[in-house]
Amino acid sequence: MVKQERALRTREALIKSAAAAFDGEGFSVSSLTVISRRAGVSNGALHFHFDSKAALAGAVEEAAAQRLGLITLRGEGEPGTALQSLVDVTHDLARMLRDDEVLRAGFALCGDNAYATSERNLRLQWRKWVERTLERAEGEGGLAEALAPHDAVVAVVAATVGFEVLGSQDSTWLSYRTLTQFWQLLLPRLASPSTLGRLRAEGRDDVGAPRAAGLSS
Amino acid sequence: MVKQERALRTREALIKSAAAAFDGEGFSVSSLTVISRRAGVSNGALHFHFDSKAALAGAVEEAAAQRLGLITLRGEGEPGTALQSLVDVTHDLARMLRDDEVLRAGFALCGDNAYATSERNLRLQWRKWVERTLERAEGEGGLAEALAPHDAVVAVVAATVGFEVLGSQDSTWLSYRTLTQFWQLLLPRLASPSTLGRLRAEGRDDVGAPRAAGLSS
Repeated sequence: MVKQERALRTREALIKSAAAAFDGEGFSVSSLTVISRRAGVSNGALHFHFDSKAALAGAVEEAAAQRLGLITLRGEGEPGTALQSLVDVTHDLARMLRDDEVLRAGFALCGDNAYATSERNLRLQWRKWVERTLERAEGEGGLAEALAPHDAVVAVVAATVGFEVLGSQDSTWLSYRTLTQFWQLLLPRLASPSTLGRLRAEGRDDVGAPRAAGLSS
Repeated sequence: MVKQERALRTREALIKSAAAAFDGEGFSVSSLTVISRRAGVSNGALHFHFDSKAALAGAVEEAAAQRLGLITLRGEGEPGTALQSLVDVTHDLARMLRDDEVLRAGFALCGDNAYATSERNLRLQWRKWVERTLERAEGEGGLAEALAPHDAVVAVVAATVGFEVLGSQDSTWLSYRTLTQFWQLLLPRLASPSTLGRLRAEGRDDVGAPRAAGLSS
């Protein structure tokens, strides 16, 4: 393994180990010694890559923001399906929050007063994507006539942040079933009648559905 | 002032000071020295009342749980108005979360991994009240026919926890307007047609509305 590749792997291992610690114990309690040990790396190597615990948390947030960017990317582009994309992407997000400590830690860091930064904020990134997507839905004529897009943004962002926060302690809140039932309840208030008939609260391709063991990617 | 009364006041001052610290900086970073100083109390007096920071946090949670109990009490009893009570109480809760550090700190402690306790949990207490209230609404025939009360509980609890969490950094999420718009969006999915006409998304008596300066209680 060339030197650069090894350095990259060490960095990745530290980010994963830090995410697990932040997710489990919170930012301020997590110990750099434990993080480096669990990553199978010396304390010196940790400090070679990251100046401080805050720098490590910044790297976790950056990695989480990239993941969130990839999840929402799926919803871009395809014309005429903005509301369905919103549904699909929330299913993907919930599944990833169940499975991925880095994404979970990235969201948790937004709400951690001990780690104060406003540079990057996953909840804000999420809200902006929901805003853009509901604006697209309005442009496509997909929204119910009396609906102010802003009201839809508020309800969707509040509920999904609620799922994220409650789900960090009880993953039922992030289940495929929970999300499907939520959309079944809300979509009739969001969608125009012609759009509503085509929408699937369970997501297209059942992307968020539980998969058979061994078949998951 | 008799000795017992003074002790009670000191205890109250410590709880308020601790709530302000936990709300602002999080549990693990908050310093007992700073908490006692801001309460105008010696470190010794703090340790006379509370064995540890966790004991102090437990007292903050208890005080917050009492406040939440008083807020939800308003919604009990009156027959035939369960859904309206749900709306009124969320307005009250949002207003109190804006104004009261103890209530805010109590909710924040539920999500603080550094302070691990499952004895008391305000979000759970809130969920149980929402469950009971929606069951009452169903018993009164106030819910829409096709609605499963559980789905309503999930949506209401997720959204209100979202408002609480997002509101701790930006109080717009807890504004009277935000809550009113949320209920305007959701109520038509929850209420039976005959109930819907009588419901006020802005709350009865505009209890949650901004009050003129000097008139607030």
